[in-house]
Amino acid sequence: MNYAVFGTGVVGRTLAAKLASLGHKVTIGTRDVDRTLAQTDSDESYSAWSAAHADVSLATFADAAAGADVVVNATNGMSSLAALQAAGAANLHGKLLIDVSNPLDFSQGMPPTLNPVGTDSLGEQIQRAFPEARVVKTLNTMNCSVMVEPGLVPGTHNVFLCGDDAEAKKEVSDLLLAFGWPQDALMDLGGITAARATEQALPLWLQLWGAIGHGNFNFRIQQAD
Amino acid sequence: MNYAVFGTGVVGRTLAAKLASLGHKVTIGTRDVDRTLAQTDSDESYSAWSAAHADVSLATFADAAAGADVVVNATNGMSSLAALQAAGAANLHGKLLIDVSNPLDFSQGMPPTLNPVGTDSLGEQIQRAFPEARVVKTLNTMNCSVMVEPGLVPGTHNVFLCGDDAEAKKEVSDLLLAFGWPQDALMDLGGITAARATEQALPLWLQLWGAIGHGNFNFRIQQAD
Repeated sequence: MNYAVFGTGVVGRTLAAKLASLGHKVTIGTRDVDRTLAQTDSDESYSAWSAAHADVSLATFADAAAGADVVVNATNGMSSLAALQAAGAANLHGKLLIDVSNPLDFSQGMPPTLNPVGTDSLGEQIQRAFPEARVVKTLNTMNCSVMVEPGLVPGTHNVFLCGDDAEAKKEVSDLLLAFGWPQDALMDLGGITAARATEQALPLWLQLWGAIGHGNFNFRIQQAD
Repeated sequence: MNYAVFGTGVVGRTLAAKLASLGHKVTIGTRDVDRTLAQTDSDESYSAWSAAHADVSLATFADAAAGADVVVNATNGMSSLAALQAAGAANLHGKLLIDVSNPLDFSQGMPPTLNPVGTDSLGEQIQRAFPEARVVKTLNTMNCSVMVEPGLVPGTHNVFLCGDDAEAKKEVSDLLLAFGWPQDALMDLGGITAARATEQALPLWLQLWGAIGHGNFNFRIQQAD
């Protein structure tokens, strides 16, 4: 399968590397390829990472999406819509669009707030802006290392997914299984409006991150039979 | 100990009955005693419940709080501040005030939204309005049956608490242990601002309630060592 992963940060890189390791063709999408490659000033620069991941290509959002079967949005949530607009609706038409981002707004100080919040969500905004894309929101309630290696957290813990297209959710479920998630870890919360709920879990995740001191934890929904 | 439990709904009743069963003197606080007692039209009326719980008294918010060592806010979140104002700051002065409510706003349709949300929370609003009360937010991320009987959900699962007064949190921790929570289930998330995080877990709780089909579930934070 041919994947475009939008976002050159740690989330995008982690997902891209995992997808490549599973044998997929992966292109990371960025706003400005030259500018991304010009950042060579630290071990964490994209260039340094890219040198160690020669199997992952870099292209503009539009070029990455044009050649992709599936698009993964792992951009900063506040610029996700701009990134997808830059890709162009035609390049997203009919495609599975996996949204793992959260609309964290750091402009109000720490901890970040969500924008939108409550009666709307980033997942819904994306689905509304690109009605011909098949948007599934998932993996946005955990650290990216746990997204692609759920065994970092012992025992069973959960990954939520939601979206309006049942077939798209089935495709995402298969991908999550390939990432190492057990079937019973997957919780389908329904339509894309449920993104309001999973995005609003982020403030608790951030608070727990502070209390626990590392990101290798996850929510488990413990329930009576 | 002498407890005032604000709120005549199922949450207040459940907490009041549990506290009474532990040997505490419990008075439920309401806006209008006569009006509360006049509702006799169903098996779920306060009068019907009260007949089966003769050890729990009913009084106005002010009278209930005046005689109490500890006040528990289990009112509808949108009317919590009004209830506490009716009790009066003098009757809350220096007291432990346990806030288990969520500011769920049903005026925007279903599912309810939170108001406030993001940069503020009901827990903080209460602490600001009553600076001489010692507010602890806890138990607001689960069904009331689970609050007082954690064994309804198998295994270990978590209860969060936050507040600005360390001694108040210690008193609440002791109460949670008396409710049957194991020590390692308690997660202290810090100051009262963390109420933003636990209140924002409610939309996910509501979504999960719909997906699971009953309320006997809870969040467990699964973590690597």
